[in-house]
Amino acid sequence: MRVKFRQLESRDFWPVVEVADEWWGGRPVRGLLQRLFFDHFADTSLIAEADAEIVGLLVGFMSSSRPGEAYIHAVGVAPSRRGAGLGRELYERFFLLVRDRGATSVHAITAPVNRGSIAFHRSLGFELEPSDRIVDGIPIHSGHDPRGGDRVLFIKHLAG
Amino acid sequence: MRVKFRQLESRDFWPVVEVADEWWGGRPVRGLLQRLFFDHFADTSLIAEADAEIVGLLVGFMSSSRPGEAYIHAVGVAPSRRGAGLGRELYERFFLLVRDRGATSVHAITAPVNRGSIAFHRSLGFELEPSDRIVDGIPIHSGHDPRGGDRVLFIKHLAG
Repeated sequence: MRVKFRQLESRDFWPVVEVADEWWGGRPVRGLLQRLFFDHFADTSLIAEADAEIVGLLVGFMSSSRPGEAYIHAVGVAPSRRGAGLGRELYERFFLLVRDRGATSVHAITAPVNRGSIAFHRSLGFELEPSDRIVDGIPIHSGHDPRGGDRVLFIKHLAG
Repeated sequence: MRVKFRQLESRDFWPVVEVADEWWGGRPVRGLLQRLFFDHFADTSLIAEADAEIVGLLVGFMSSSRPGEAYIHAVGVAPSRRGAGLGRELYERFFLLVRDRGATSVHAITAPVNRGSIAFHRSLGFELEPSDRIVDGIPIHSGHDPRGGDRVLFIKHLAG
């Protein structure tokens, strides 16, 4: 089934919440997916659908206090749809979307343990933001998140 | 000690996290106060300080996908400073801040059990958004939050 992309809407909130724990491997992501993103940052967020079913999601926004920066808050792909480039397409569509709104860089974060995510972001042209603390070759930003601690910070510069 | 107000900054993240559980009465609010608000919505968020100590906080933003709407995400006042109009002043400063950016309405939510918050918002000129479900005279919006369930939705129209 062909995948279609559209803007996120408020009505996607509950369907996404329902599948989120499964998509994110059982981790409780409900705190991450607050309704405010669906209500107030829908215009820079994306849904991928196949056969009227939600199979992918990207929640992102333009920074208000850091002009020119866009931020990717959460990305998820249905397990049955992985490995087909769907995550990559969500990112690339977001890059175009926020470049049209004046973004010159896109930012995202992950946990240092998430090596797959680090490799994926690098393959999309993200760089790792430098830090004084390097572990296994990865620059680590300590205490970024009060619940989890260390984070890896990504930045991608958008071509003009 | 006189209270001073200033814009939120990224560096306020950890000091606020440290006091948040105490301010909010021991409830775990750390999921609410994600770093992204400090980094990306600092320009519409406020800190109240007395004697170089943080005594109040308002985190809010302009909606991106709902033009003209502003949203208040979190408000907290140090227990020792309550009852002195500090919360009210944070709200009123936010109203001016977002009106200058084109907001015509301000939105906020609370739990139905939080009668003090409902009375406080009403005293600030907020109305309760209608719902088919009325409990004890309060319009309840069911299933607004996947973790908590019911919510009361506030709206305040800003004068032009």
